[in-house]
Amino acid sequence: MTTSTPGTIYLEDMTVGMSRSLTKILSADVVAAFAEVSEDRNPIHLDEAAGKASVFKERIAHGMLGASLFSALLGEHLPGHGTIYLGQNLKFLAPVPVGASVTATVTVKEIKDRKRVVMTCEAHVGDTLVIAGEATVLAPSRA
Amino acid sequence: MTTSTPGTIYLEDMTVGMSRSLTKILSADVVAAFAEVSEDRNPIHLDEAAGKASVFKERIAHGMLGASLFSALLGEHLPGHGTIYLGQNLKFLAPVPVGASVTATVTVKEIKDRKRVVMTCEAHVGDTLVIAGEATVLAPSRA
Repeated sequence: MTTSTPGTIYLEDMTVGMSRSLTKILSADVVAAFAEVSEDRNPIHLDEAAGKASVFKERIAHGMLGASLFSALLGEHLPGHGTIYLGQNLKFLAPVPVGASVTATVTVKEIKDRKRVVMTCEAHVGDTLVIAGEATVLAPSRA
Repeated sequence: MTTSTPGTIYLEDMTVGMSRSLTKILSADVVAAFAEVSEDRNPIHLDEAAGKASVFKERIAHGMLGASLFSALLGEHLPGHGTIYLGQNLKFLAPVPVGASVTATVTVKEIKDRKRVVMTCEAHVGDTLVIAGEATVLAPSRA
């Protein structure tokens, strides 16, 4: 579930503070699919007993799965199609239980020279900030 | 294809310079599966014509798909099961064409206090460094 349709917001139309969000339930099926594509089949993500035995006391979603929602927002919504992804910093602040609904948000933090834009990236489960970071992208330009 | 079997290398057994690698072909099917789990259905990844029309002149894999291989190495091989993922920095240095074979490598850079370990993360396609970064993890301890 996103707050916008896929497309492009050009550099010339971007302003600091502009943001886009996406909400996804990281269900057991989604986590299992991510395990296949990433090769990360760590039992803490896939096995109920391993999750219960862990420090988290339950199965958790892969941190990079939650972080992948930033890629979707940057590549499809803000700036969207035509964006070139240069870099991403991530801090995994809290575990995301399997089945949780995660809301990822990207916000324009700084518009720099040579089409470079720094985006603040945050993911929440309810009121809990679970992932925080920054992305640097080259935004598509009308020029 | 990995150079080790899944398991745990405990903090007490880790040394600076220790490394593990994983090679995966980012096929059209893998890229399509990542698009579904991440919600990133940017046509540059999925549509041949959009790829050809792009600055890259071909379809490319999601940067975060390549980066997800670091998660697999950290969570399954080095340190492996029991690792807590604290943070990840990534620079996307070169595009990865759909169908390319990517080799991801994580290497112990620094063993800090309180079980914190900094890992160098690199992904190559042939001789080309396509992703570079660092991860910070809490390593499992025998203590």
